[in-house]
Amino acid sequence: MARDKNEKVEPAEQLKRASEWWTTKIVDIKPGSIRMRGYAIEELIGRISFPQMIWLMLRGELPTAEQSSLLEAALVSAVDHGPHAPSISISRMAVTCGLPLNGAMASAINVLDDIHGGAGEQCMALYAQISQRLDRDEPIVSATEAALEAFRAEFGKIIPGFGHRFHPTDPRSVRLLALVDDARKSGFVDGRFADIGRCVESVLERQKGKKLPMNIDGATAVIYSELGFPPPLGRGLFILSRSVGILAHAWEQTQQGGRIKGPMPPSIPYNYTGEPERHLALQKTTDQ
Amino acid sequence: MARDKNEKVEPAEQLKRASEWWTTKIVDIKPGSIRMRGYAIEELIGRISFPQMIWLMLRGELPTAEQSSLLEAALVSAVDHGPHAPSISISRMAVTCGLPLNGAMASAINVLDDIHGGAGEQCMALYAQISQRLDRDEPIVSATEAALEAFRAEFGKIIPGFGHRFHPTDPRSVRLLALVDDARKSGFVDGRFADIGRCVESVLERQKGKKLPMNIDGATAVIYSELGFPPPLGRGLFILSRSVGILAHAWEQTQQGGRIKGPMPPSIPYNYTGEPERHLALQKTTDQ
Amino acid sequence: MARDKNEKVEPAEQLKRASEWWTTKIVDIKPGSIRMRGYAIEELIGRISFPQMIWLMLRGELPTAEQSSLLEAALVSAVDHGPHAPSISISRMAVTCGLPLNGAMASAINVLDDIHGGAGEQCMALYAQISQRLDRDEPIVSATEAALEAFRAEFGKIIPGFGHRFHPTDPRSVRLLALVDDARKSGFVDGRFADIGRCVESVLERQKGKKLPMNIDGATAVIYSELGFPPPLGRGLFILSRSVGILAHAWEQTQQGGRIKGPMPPSIPYNYTGEPERHLALQKTTDQ
Amino acid sequence: MARDKNEKVEPAEQLKRASEWWTTKIVDIKPGSIRMRGYAIEELIGRISFPQMIWLMLRGELPTAEQSSLLEAALVSAVDHGPHAPSISISRMAVTCGLPLNGAMASAINVLDDIHGGAGEQCMALYAQISQRLDRDEPIVSATEAALEAFRAEFGKIIPGFGHRFHPTDPRSVRLLALVDDARKSGFVDGRFADIGRCVESVLERQKGKKLPMNIDGATAVIYSELGFPPPLGRGLFILSRSVGILAHAWEQTQQGGRIKGPMPPSIPYNYTGEPERHLALQKTTDQ
Repeated sequence: MARDKNEKVEPAEQLKRASEWWTTKIVDIKPGSIRMRGYAIEELIGRISFPQMIWLMLRGELPTAEQSSLLEAALVSAVDHGPHAPSISISRMAVTCGLPLNGAMASAINVLDDIHGGAGEQCMALYAQISQRLDRDEPIVSATEAALEAFRAEFGKIIPGFGHRFHPTDPRSVRLLALVDDARKSGFVDGRFADIGRCVESVLERQKGKKLPMNIDGATAVIYSELGFPPPLGRGLFILSRSVGILAHAWEQTQQGGRIKGPMPPSIPYNYTGEPERHLALQKTTDQ
Repeated sequence: MARDKNEKVEPAEQLKRASEWWTTKIVDIKPGSIRMRGYAIEELIGRISFPQMIWLMLRGELPTAEQSSLLEAALVSAVDHGPHAPSISISRMAVTCGLPLNGAMASAINVLDDIHGGAGEQCMALYAQISQRLDRDEPIVSATEAALEAFRAEFGKIIPGFGHRFHPTDPRSVRLLALVDDARKSGFVDGRFADIGRCVESVLERQKGKKLPMNIDGATAVIYSELGFPPPLGRGLFILSRSVGILAHAWEQTQQGGRIKGPMPPSIPYNYTGEPERHLALQKTTDQ
Repeated sequence: MARDKNEKVEPAEQLKRASEWWTTKIVDIKPGSIRMRGYAIEELIGRISFPQMIWLMLRGELPTAEQSSLLEAALVSAVDHGPHAPSISISRMAVTCGLPLNGAMASAINVLDDIHGGAGEQCMALYAQISQRLDRDEPIVSATEAALEAFRAEFGKIIPGFGHRFHPTDPRSVRLLALVDDARKSGFVDGRFADIGRCVESVLERQKGKKLPMNIDGATAVIYSELGFPPPLGRGLFILSRSVGILAHAWEQTQQGGRIKGPMPPSIPYNYTGEPERHLALQKTTDQ
Repeated sequence: MARDKNEKVEPAEQLKRASEWWTTKIVDIKPGSIRMRGYAIEELIGRISFPQMIWLMLRGELPTAEQSSLLEAALVSAVDHGPHAPSISISRMAVTCGLPLNGAMASAINVLDDIHGGAGEQCMALYAQISQRLDRDEPIVSATEAALEAFRAEFGKIIPGFGHRFHPTDPRSVRLLALVDDARKSGFVDGRFADIGRCVESVLERQKGKKLPMNIDGATAVIYSELGFPPPLGRGLFILSRSVGILAHAWEQTQQGGRIKGPMPPSIPYNYTGEPERHLALQKTTDQ
């Protein structure tokens, strides 16, 4: 039997360590009882909305109705951007390889990584840098310029959350910012991050000489920052949202059928640029 | 360059085929315009709830407010059942291996397969069998007995959606069924599948001589069936719900830290039952 | 603290159960000692080949040199079939989304499911059915016809392992079968499954009126069956082989760069066939 | 139909772009012909070993027999380290959730990320730093000290490739280094990275006041560096190796059976440390 270096621990102590191996503040389960963050599940079902449950699970407390509405708007906004997005096409290809919905969603969600799913998170981190400078009473324009400079020095020239290779203006961003403005007027959010996002947009336009409009990542980053989510949860919330589109496309592909569907029709060749034909006999270095 | 058998197709026709390679009714994107199922995204953001968006994406039309409330209750109910569930522990282990939230969620969602994530789908298929028998005017008890017998003949003795190895009664199911009863009284749902679910429960109790209470999969299967979802989407909706718990635990583990955390403390040995020590010299069949 | 129904088990018994939760015959680890199937790892390193290690891990004993050579030929044969294969393009797309090699490989390997990765396994199961009929002294042609008929009744008209939508003859199959013939002449394998595979090919040609040549899945199925692997490991071995191509393409894409690369150039539109533009105002059934 | 900004490109040009979307030097496929890095696949099958194929795919040329032997030894060494490793237990848990071998392998391989699968890669990067200092004629001890200091400043105090929480000495490392020494004596490798690895070990011992012996990651990093692989392929090769153990355990679990197997026996509770029971009525901030 495999054993550890440490062999002399008492069984009761061993068991205690085993219990503590999995420690959580999220859910407490006893026979007949399931409590999430202290609330009995049966008190939550039918009384709180799905976005409120998401907030409770991630942050430990329930949001206000107004906070929940903003979160809901952001979740609605990012569900899908069509099969040119790798996440969506992978989901559909996976189905044609025989995968059930869970497998298709897993392969697709996996690619919502730094570049495809992390722009919102990175944008929130950028906004947070600017916000910290505002706390130190820097004016917003110079705070933004300094934060952009620091960001570029560390991560390169692409500023996440701004510009789109397809949309001249992103209709989602315009609408989301309008909702933030409404919430600010009503006093439900502070509005600091809406100001920051717009300042980044205007500084970028001046620096580039053309408009790089705030995209969906930049706009949801405003909302998630206003609501107090830490940057990594910007990625997590985007995943919850985009999962809806990934599921919808997997299901549509299931109904369409198709087998082992690659990225393009087989009649369109790919581009081979490697070695021309050669033979093992020419290869002196093997022992075969 | 790699080529296809079919070499004589005109470029315009080739391009048409390429476009049709990805065909969808879900989303239409033009520069500056994103329409989901025909609706401009900016009309949906801030006006429909996240569960309504889920319904629209999966089914093509918007639900009524009452349909959406039942869907929301089911989505809220299944978010988490603690780290003894493989999906949750895998999510947490993945984080300690260095994965960001998308990767942890992917490895975890992947295991919501036939056994861990498919019980609701299977239960919906069982209910649908009973429902078809009701359409042929069979009495509900004999319809249920016959469907159970057919199910066992094909899939074995475990009836998905009933019984729980931990909870004597599942508080989620009781609450969900009460919500269906309310909706039935108000005329928003038919109630047929609530009757079917309860009949399965009572037939199983009689057959087994003990209560196998309806569990979360059996109860959400009632709701999703009442709402007209096809069985495979029972799995899909469960995944959207459980993804919230998977994300919450991944995030909690991120904050706790820990490196390469296996399933149990290393001080608890695993059980090796294989070959005792042996040596290659004893092995005559190799050429080494 | 969450607790189980069963509360009275002694700590020592609890611990024993914990140890037995993970039971394996594959590897025994003690401080300073790692034994695989009974052999100290340091005795294996540098003395057995990688395919021999694969065999040992999967089957518990070492293969002969001749068995290992056939396994090696099959592993070499299936490493790659270009980026039109979903597994390969997914691997490359994943890299452009920011994933490291492990993540790209995971998303890609995941899709080697029933249709894209399971053909070899299914073909082995078909061969095994024919082989069982031979054991009952049925002539090979009628055994093959009967097994094909049973297969089609259960799984549909596509016979895994035969025919290719691209190659008129598959150069890998021809070479692999020649190696099996050599091994048969030398008495290292029985040759039964080579006969079975060729008989399936000729029966299919007669039934279809055209040649459906044995493809890579049909040929590796011959080898893995000759070597005594059970059908599910046909899928497993294919995955080990194809993983090499998946890794090579992920690595090439890493070096090429590219960001969020979808399946086709964005300049080629996809085909939207859904609802034309419509508005929420027309939707009476929502409460918004 | 969705369209791009750029609408005036001719079909032939569009097609050319589509072809170039997938550009590779790895594999060229024509009807009846599959060439890997220029070699017809049928010339490779049965003539080159699986490790030689791995090398050819990743690097474009075939290795010598001696290079291939060292690679093979490293691939054999890292296949498995038992179910306490997250990769292995995830593979087994996945099977009990209903996943086939591909899905179990995907969820497991996914977690071979920076911490669980990236130590070899990081160690190779460290060795490369030291090697560059040697090129500038720094003495090896001061080169090692400087590289360690730079590494700690950037990545923290854990030096990948050295020390093991279980093994006082790792039998795999000792054996692998001995093979490198043999190859150096025969002139097949330079030996520079073996010297570097040993120097890191001795500097760490002096700095820590106790031995932090080279582990499997440190030893395979020596071999892969000697063979000229770039650091990211250290991770890739580890994945190919560990995939064998992941598959073997998935297959053993398939044969053992079990359903929805979590990390520990359900009779061992996990540790809930969150909010005590509370009620929605106490929550003033919701609108429910």
